[in-house]
Amino acid sequence: MPIKSRIRSIADFPKPGVIFRDITTLLKDTTGFRIAIHKLINHYRGKKIQKVAAIEARGFIVGSPLAYAIGAGFVPIRKAGKLPAKTIGHDYESEYGQDRLEIHTDAITAGDHILLVDDILATGGSAAAACSLLRKAGGIVTECAFIVNLPNLGGHERLEKLGLRIFTLAEFDN
Amino acid sequence: MPIKSRIRSIADFPKPGVIFRDITTLLKDTTGFRIAIHKLINHYRGKKIQKVAAIEARGFIVGSPLAYAIGAGFVPIRKAGKLPAKTIGHDYESEYGQDRLEIHTDAITAGDHILLVDDILATGGSAAAACSLLRKAGGIVTECAFIVNLPNLGGHERLEKLGLRIFTLAEFDN
Repeated sequence: MPIKSRIRSIADFPKPGVIFRDITTLLKDTTGFRIAIHKLINHYRGKKIQKVAAIEARGFIVGSPLAYAIGAGFVPIRKAGKLPAKTIGHDYESEYGQDRLEIHTDAITAGDHILLVDDILATGGSAAAACSLLRKAGGIVTECAFIVNLPNLGGHERLEKLGLRIFTLAEFDN
Repeated sequence: MPIKSRIRSIADFPKPGVIFRDITTLLKDTTGFRIAIHKLINHYRGKKIQKVAAIEARGFIVGSPLAYAIGAGFVPIRKAGKLPAKTIGHDYESEYGQDRLEIHTDAITAGDHILLVDDILATGGSAAAACSLLRKAGGIVTECAFIVNLPNLGGHERLEKLGLRIFTLAEFDN
């Protein structure tokens, strides 16, 4: 388990009762980081993907090397108000309240095949919102990749209902 | 100018009188993104770099593929309160007020050679703070890379005075 064993678990972050799965211990480890990104590259290389879109901020760390390696463009999906040009957004309910994700209106060319990337799949709320946003902007989104999957939180099923195929590298019970 | 021509300039963002240099138009372009990351890889491959540290959030997009390609670990430098484990921080004055950057206390092994990465070098305030933080944590920091340099804002000189060598890919007057 070269990946799972390098992910640190932190109790009661960001709130009591939650176990936070911290990938910084994987990222700082040359071998762990290389293996994780390499597995993603091997899975997606040669598939028809024009853009990799990743969710701020940890998703950028995972999505950017993948985009580079498979020859795709990179689209940052950001929290409200961060992007400087004209944006398109999607509002959603997160477990921490009302949230909004945005991309530039010119980030996607209609018909682009887009791979959505983030670090952790939990309830799937932000990934589902990101997928809706990318589709609203004209993208074709059928694939999502995450380092960590927390299958008991139901994100996997939620995204599959949206027609998304999921690829993850490590699973934790919660 | 495959890189500079793909960077978008936006007047009066984030405040009146500032021209924001927006790299999202470079990132979404497969060719531009590949050329930019490739130039960074070519410059740093084979140098003795154990860790690439990048500043939240756009710095992650530039630093992560570079870390992957040169076989280094990746260290995210984050705003206060974002990291889940024990942190070490550095407070500094930014043009927008009091700011703080943090890394995990175990992110750096004493003696690690660290390359600092961000998207834009302006006044050099956040890069200087990041460098101080990485050195406080025991790292050896002698190299900084940015996509964009705004030489008239003085960041280049400021970082050179800290003993840092600077590598950038595109320059704008302001």
